[in-house]
Amino acid sequence: MYKSETKIRVRYAETDQMGYIYYGNYAAYYEVARVESLRQLGLSYKDLEADGIIMPVLENYSKYLAPGRYDELLTVKVTVKKRPGVKIVFNYEIFNEADELINIGETKLAFIDTASGIPCRMPDDMAEAMSGYY
Amino acid sequence: MYKSETKIRVRYAETDQMGYIYYGNYAAYYEVARVESLRQLGLSYKDLEADGIIMPVLENYSKYLAPGRYDELLTVKVTVKKRPGVKIVFNYEIFNEADELINIGETKLAFIDTASGIPCRMPDDMAEAMSGYY
Amino acid sequence: MYKSETKIRVRYAETDQMGYIYYGNYAAYYEVARVESLRQLGLSYKDLEADGIIMPVLENYSKYLAPGRYDELLTVKVTVKKRPGVKIVFNYEIFNEADELINIGETKLAFIDTASGIPCRMPDDMAEAMSGYY
Amino acid sequence: MYKSETKIRVRYAETDQMGYIYYGNYAAYYEVARVESLRQLGLSYKDLEADGIIMPVLENYSKYLAPGRYDELLTVKVTVKKRPGVKIVFNYEIFNEADELINIGETKLAFIDTASGIPCRMPDDMAEAMSGYY
Repeated sequence: MYKSETKIRVRYAETDQMGYIYYGNYAAYYEVARVESLRQLGLSYKDLEADGIIMPVLENYSKYLAPGRYDELLTVKVTVKKRPGVKIVFNYEIFNEADELINIGETKLAFIDTASGIPCRMPDDMAEAMSGYY
Repeated sequence: MYKSETKIRVRYAETDQMGYIYYGNYAAYYEVARVESLRQLGLSYKDLEADGIIMPVLENYSKYLAPGRYDELLTVKVTVKKRPGVKIVFNYEIFNEADELINIGETKLAFIDTASGIPCRMPDDMAEAMSGYY
Repeated sequence: MYKSETKIRVRYAETDQMGYIYYGNYAAYYEVARVESLRQLGLSYKDLEADGIIMPVLENYSKYLAPGRYDELLTVKVTVKKRPGVKIVFNYEIFNEADELINIGETKLAFIDTASGIPCRMPDDMAEAMSGYY
Repeated sequence: MYKSETKIRVRYAETDQMGYIYYGNYAAYYEVARVESLRQLGLSYKDLEADGIIMPVLENYSKYLAPGRYDELLTVKVTVKKRPGVKIVFNYEIFNEADELINIGETKLAFIDTASGIPCRMPDDMAEAMSGYY
């Protein structure tokens, strides 16, 4: 399976008055982490969209294990457990600077051909880049 | 069970370049909807915090059934299916102006005593306000 | 000149760990307020975009006079002092529930024809709707 | 004067349906850039808050010169032109990957002693770290 890792620094904008990362902001961390995980494979989500494929999110799940805090340099570990087909599932584990697991998440995305609006298979270059992992 | 309904107008800030509501922004809609659902019971989450109880989110799940779009006046139907104890679970159904179900979600929150940091039971006024529904 | 008023409830998502509204979130309040001010004239920014005109922001200024706080029902007073031409300037005054002025702002926007990418004049229906105020 | 530079990758979350960075999101870029500019001086805004000083924003100004776009690795150049006293002013210039200046901004912040709520002077370690630049 494919694994990668990304660092994200918590912004003040992302905290709330509880002094924690607002629970809704983890979705953006997941987005950053999965885009970087693709980039580490030599793939660009931006180019994918330019080539006529979008990847809308179908489902998202988060479990908040411990508060995330301002200015921490988080480590987001991303795993794609199953070889993607017409859908792709990313799993995330987020660790704080004390290496404590603070959040786990899972996002399922579709591949959609923008011209037709119809679901399609993972693009060839992604299939190739991922082929060594499954 | 307790049911309520809230209207939310989609902001431009909440869209992304796909032309949809960014998937991470539904969490804020859920927050607005559950706070308004409490307000309709005569309860204020702001006062709850002032009284020394916070309600951090433990888990959040979203399923995206159809794109949400700019400027639509969404209807968020909130349900609390089970009588809350030391945790409370809110379920959401979001409908667009065409009355199409575009999103469903579920959030589990804890009651935490801010002084001790320890989970506690639902406050008395909330228990009383909800008592008629279970 | 044209004046209007909009109410906005502060979301938890919009607070930061200082316990205030994060300074960057006022821009979204301004957006909501100016879109509502147009709606009160019978104009829809969504329809404007559908008709091929976008209104990107050219300049934005905010002065933060007092902290904005969670759950307050803010009143945003919007003024368009000068009759718009190829640009439009919105001024904002934001009051909290104690009727204290907490924020003032100003946003300058252009009218851009999306087909050509070229600045254009205010659309006719907007000119007509605003004609009584200047 | 003190100058520094920070790189920020544009997130999908930060775009809007115009296909640009939403105008309100530049404030968070400014925040990141000024915090990193302090970090490059050996200063931590997080520690500053822990030491009992907050830096609320008093004024913010943005000029949008060209659209910012998804996935671009922006360069934010930060300048503190005048030696800070009880206030500090940060100026920003944001360049896209084509080295085009897309945004300029200015933020004025106060130093507030959290215990008293009263404005105070820049903390000693900051004064020392900045002393070589003025």
